[in-house]
Amino acid sequence: MYVKLLSISRRTRSTPFSRRVEAAGVKAYTVYNHMLLPTEFVSYEDDYWHLCKHVQVWDVSAERQVEIRGPGAMRLVQLMTPRDISKAQDKQCFYLPLCNAQGGIINDPIAIRHSPERWWLSIADSDVKLWAQGLASGLELDVEVFEPEVWPLAVQGPMAEELVSRLFGEQIRSIRFFRGEYLTFRGKSMYMARSGWSKQGGFEIYLNDASLAEPLWDELFRLGADLEVRAGCPNMIERLESGLLSYGNDFDDSINPFECGLDHFINLDADIKSLSLAALRKLAGKHEKQLSGLVFNQKMRFEKTCLEANNNNAGVVTSHCWSPRYGKHLAFAMLNRDYLSNHTSIEVEGVAANITALPFSSDVLNA
Amino acid sequence: MYVKLLSISRRTRSTPFSRRVEAAGVKAYTVYNHMLLPTEFVSYEDDYWHLCKHVQVWDVSAERQVEIRGPGAMRLVQLMTPRDISKAQDKQCFYLPLCNAQGGIINDPIAIRHSPERWWLSIADSDVKLWAQGLASGLELDVEVFEPEVWPLAVQGPMAEELVSRLFGEQIRSIRFFRGEYLTFRGKSMYMARSGWSKQGGFEIYLNDASLAEPLWDELFRLGADLEVRAGCPNMIERLESGLLSYGNDFDDSINPFECGLDHFINLDADIKSLSLAALRKLAGKHEKQLSGLVFNQKMRFEKTCLEANNNNAGVVTSHCWSPRYGKHLAFAMLNRDYLSNHTSIEVEGVAANITALPFSSDVLNA
Repeated sequence: MYVKLLSISRRTRSTPFSRRVEAAGVKAYTVYNHMLLPTEFVSYEDDYWHLCKHVQVWDVSAERQVEIRGPGAMRLVQLMTPRDISKAQDKQCFYLPLCNAQGGIINDPIAIRHSPERWWLSIADSDVKLWAQGLASGLELDVEVFEPEVWPLAVQGPMAEELVSRLFGEQIRSIRFFRGEYLTFRGKSMYMARSGWSKQGGFEIYLNDASLAEPLWDELFRLGADLEVRAGCPNMIERLESGLLSYGNDFDDSINPFECGLDHFINLDADIKSLSLAALRKLAGKHEKQLSGLVFNQKMRFEKTCLEANNNNAGVVTSHCWSPRYGKHLAFAMLNRDYLSNHTSIEVEGVAANITALPFSSDVLNA
Repeated sequence: MYVKLLSISRRTRSTPFSRRVEAAGVKAYTVYNHMLLPTEFVSYEDDYWHLCKHVQVWDVSAERQVEIRGPGAMRLVQLMTPRDISKAQDKQCFYLPLCNAQGGIINDPIAIRHSPERWWLSIADSDVKLWAQGLASGLELDVEVFEPEVWPLAVQGPMAEELVSRLFGEQIRSIRFFRGEYLTFRGKSMYMARSGWSKQGGFEIYLNDASLAEPLWDELFRLGADLEVRAGCPNMIERLESGLLSYGNDFDDSINPFECGLDHFINLDADIKSLSLAALRKLAGKHEKQLSGLVFNQKMRFEKTCLEANNNNAGVVTSHCWSPRYGKHLAFAMLNRDYLSNHTSIEVEGVAANITALPFSSDVLNA
């Protein structure tokens, strides 16, 4: 990652939290689903240590919702994913790789079933709404597909449960991972789940009233003052250490679920109607690439992200960062399986890296 | 517009021209179709005056192509747009508003017909590929929909024809506006059209070989040295003065073509199968908003872009800039038609603006 100036316009949408994010000293953004997503406040490293120790409030409005509503909702959602959704329950979060007819990954949202006829897809960075609308139009399904006025706010870190319990009461402690409840803030009911784009624990509040954005933000900071609450954002270092993938960085629609290790979210044998299943059944076991971890014992520059070995293409680095905790440079790399079958290490810029499975094991990180 | 730092990652894709763009001193980017699009080199004003006087080379790779190929291509493209495409000819550019079943605008690409069975949509900032793939899957059309490896490079400005003729020969002077030819650079055939996102004249070269990106860039700068050629980019000031709309800024899928003045690209009476025609026929004449121009005689801040008049919502400013040539602040605004029917001016931040049609007439600009 490197930084340049970003020209912000109406197209790179602000959020109802943007004034508070700016006041909190955001340093940099990315653009995600045509919306501003903060990437850094104090520094990647400082943000990282704070996140792992305390609690942060994240404006993740850019996790846009695609609402699918109507009698055809279950059918449409099932068409979009090779994961069997018949077991999903109301208020549950469900990680759903979405795949096209070739088996390529369109997006990897968290699906939230509000009812069998009302789903949200909390999406990564691609216009799933357009794909769903195209399918619905083509199949003349009885559904509405739209982006509701919802802006998720994440509370993440080891003290997240404490902070959120001060806001919504002790009962939130019993919400299990990837489960949610409808809670009330200033008289408005909104969905909240135990989820979020870190492995430090926490919740995502799906704010559904823009006028309550600043009151909600301010209340979290008032209640969390003694917890050293800070504004934060998905953190590159924490993401790589935790093995969390990023759509658009680590995989895209040229990649199938087997190549990025999502096999266990695909129900190849299920009796379901999914656009991608026929293609995926053919691809199973025959895919050519595999997302892998690389561990270097020193800081890397990665001037080239294409990896070569003996002048042959071995693969490509998709994400990387220096881990201050482990004193190692960590990378995700999409490696060719024929290279993988013969090698357990690779040399990059004169430095040897161990190749490892993802997520990184603690043995590997602590070695 | 204001600027912040942008975190650049693999997801915010670089282009084959990026090294040259960086070397040319790009100051700021936006993210457009998940790709870096330069917004500023020296300054908006300096870039503007240079563009209007000389010639610039623009990395507009972010104008991604959606290729639609196969026996079902004409049918799919026609479904996507309410404009009758039956008159389109090979090698022609065709401005195509794409509309969903509700009549909302999904995107407004330039379509290029390479043959009846092979189209490119040179898109604005939304994932048209996903919509087209959804439609094709739902309708089981015999088409492939994909993003080809093509990176447009624009040559814009009054000396663009001179520069491009030095590269490709005198015959390019006979290419008419929105027509194109296949030309050869270093043995590789590629499409070039007389088009581009300015009104200063010029061409877009659809580079289809990444390894030729830097040779093409360098050759244009070598041939154009005496023409004072510079690296540039779509310019905010020139865009507003010329009345060019920007998808995502000035309109989106909540807006129909009547509301943003695209009526003349809609064939309401055509005997065509288009997803949006039924909805658009109902909307015709009954739309509630109208994109309009605002002209202020002094620089504006626009701390709020929601426009109020007597405590009623009058509309919203979608784009604005100071015009150094005319000494006026220009804005596009989506105004409610009931406000428009009773007013020819509006007061914003204590300053009165004349309301005018778009594009701005020279009378208005010179008043």
